[in-house]
Amino acid sequence: MDWSAEITAAAERIKGHVLRTPVVTITEGFDLSYPVQVKLEQMQHTGTFKARGAFNTLLSSNVPEAGLVAASGGNHGAAVAYAAHKLGHKARIYVPEMAGPAKVALIRDARADLVVVPGAYAEALEQALAYEQDTGAMQIHAYDALGTVAGQGTVALEWDAQGLDADTVLIAVGGGGLIGGAMAWFDGRRRIVAVEPETSCALNAALSAGAPVDVEVSGVAANALGARKIGQICFDLAVSSGAESVLVTDAAITRAQEALWRAHRQLVEPAGATALAALMSGAYVPAPGEKVAVLVCGANIAPDPFQ
Amino acid sequence: MDWSAEITAAAERIKGHVLRTPVVTITEGFDLSYPVQVKLEQMQHTGTFKARGAFNTLLSSNVPEAGLVAASGGNHGAAVAYAAHKLGHKARIYVPEMAGPAKVALIRDARADLVVVPGAYAEALEQALAYEQDTGAMQIHAYDALGTVAGQGTVALEWDAQGLDADTVLIAVGGGGLIGGAMAWFDGRRRIVAVEPETSCALNAALSAGAPVDVEVSGVAANALGARKIGQICFDLAVSSGAESVLVTDAAITRAQEALWRAHRQLVEPAGATALAALMSGAYVPAPGEKVAVLVCGANIAPDPFQ
Repeated sequence: MDWSAEITAAAERIKGHVLRTPVVTITEGFDLSYPVQVKLEQMQHTGTFKARGAFNTLLSSNVPEAGLVAASGGNHGAAVAYAAHKLGHKARIYVPEMAGPAKVALIRDARADLVVVPGAYAEALEQALAYEQDTGAMQIHAYDALGTVAGQGTVALEWDAQGLDADTVLIAVGGGGLIGGAMAWFDGRRRIVAVEPETSCALNAALSAGAPVDVEVSGVAANALGARKIGQICFDLAVSSGAESVLVTDAAITRAQEALWRAHRQLVEPAGATALAALMSGAYVPAPGEKVAVLVCGANIAPDPFQ
Repeated sequence: MDWSAEITAAAERIKGHVLRTPVVTITEGFDLSYPVQVKLEQMQHTGTFKARGAFNTLLSSNVPEAGLVAASGGNHGAAVAYAAHKLGHKARIYVPEMAGPAKVALIRDARADLVVVPGAYAEALEQALAYEQDTGAMQIHAYDALGTVAGQGTVALEWDAQGLDADTVLIAVGGGGLIGGAMAWFDGRRRIVAVEPETSCALNAALSAGAPVDVEVSGVAANALGARKIGQICFDLAVSSGAESVLVTDAAITRAQEALWRAHRQLVEPAGATALAALMSGAYVPAPGEKVAVLVCGANIAPDPFQ
């Protein structure tokens, strides 16, 4: 797989459809003795990086008359619904109950046909697969698909172009689309630290087991990071690139979430603060002089402040 | 007054004490047919640009043993308290009741000696002046002082250095420290649009009257933009530079505030959305091809999401 070419093509394809999100170097407010480079990808359309993968997939596919179908903890569904609406396609989105009202409202706002499914992400995915079979709608997988991973990889390409000067980039992991794209783009040129909640750690479990395995998911970030099994694409990239896997507690995530607001008025969802939590909690401690960067990936909090 | 030299010196002085806030070009979500360049100055320490003026003043003064005193709608007080704490000085801050609990908490967090005064900003200023007389503490005026205006002007200098490519910059006005600094820095090189709430419009009233005059203040942004009289420094700069003055309704401000959240997950206070409100409401309509920029200046909302 020529990931560099795939991601470069994806960036060209989605240009104008996604926001070039800002970057900032933060030196205070996180109780750290070193600066942290931050990319505010939660400013992206629909509040997460997911719009990138959705636009990349749609713009590189012949979308059938039956439109699109996706299963999602909420954020991917919102992104697919938004991209479909912008490009004039129908979209059917399955979300688990745990998605919560804020994410459900986001998907409704994008005029998608929404189905809330009892249970977790896996149950929503099952129904989405059945709908695909029945109707011929095009399935956009939330993380384990080439178009999705290449689209998410444009975050890393863009950050490089913005002058990222980091030895190490910390990224939160759910199903592995975002970090997969970053590992694919950086290709060993930067150390990648995969940060997961202790309560939703599909990549960590897979690396221990030597293959993707099912995990239980719960905790404050579950409706964004709660994939039951890591994507194969991400797993293979993590193994080949030697990404480091660390875990953080829910309490550490909440503390990082509050610090982002207190210090710099960025209100993010738990998943969006998870990578920073690894630094603030000491789950990852950079060596002296090691330059670190944190990707802030989502801000679809519940309750929504304007709901 | 050699403003260029003053602001350049201020930028040098406060370097490392303030955040270089990020900039972003936004093309969607504001219901506008043109892109808007935005500087996220609400990410600054204590949630507004005010930290710049506070650090500039402290770092260019011999602070007396009695420390500092300031009167403030809340944001200036928080900034003075923060800068004083960082630099090891005592601070006494007077705020009017209308400052509200979020801003009061900010000042308390910075370990200042806080006095809440019945009434509006003018009453707090009266007491601060009395305290200055009694104790010899150093007064830092919220907007009508050279050190304050030069400090706030570093926002404009910094934005230029970040590649600002705008014909026109829209800035919210309270007492005029921020826009004064911007007018002083840009010095006619860019058109400045001064945006005020209809309910707190000290600059607009002064320009009509030909001199600073007292106005009544109320409305959603009053605890940030509710100066009863525009600063003389700002007034003189506005007259000499020919800044354009426009007014927006509280409803337009609230709509812009919600759009910043919905479209790009920036949660700001009403004052922080006031400049954008001028574009979204049509109070200012750029000519075809005119490039516009909006300064987002504050995010100390009430209630604080983590309170």
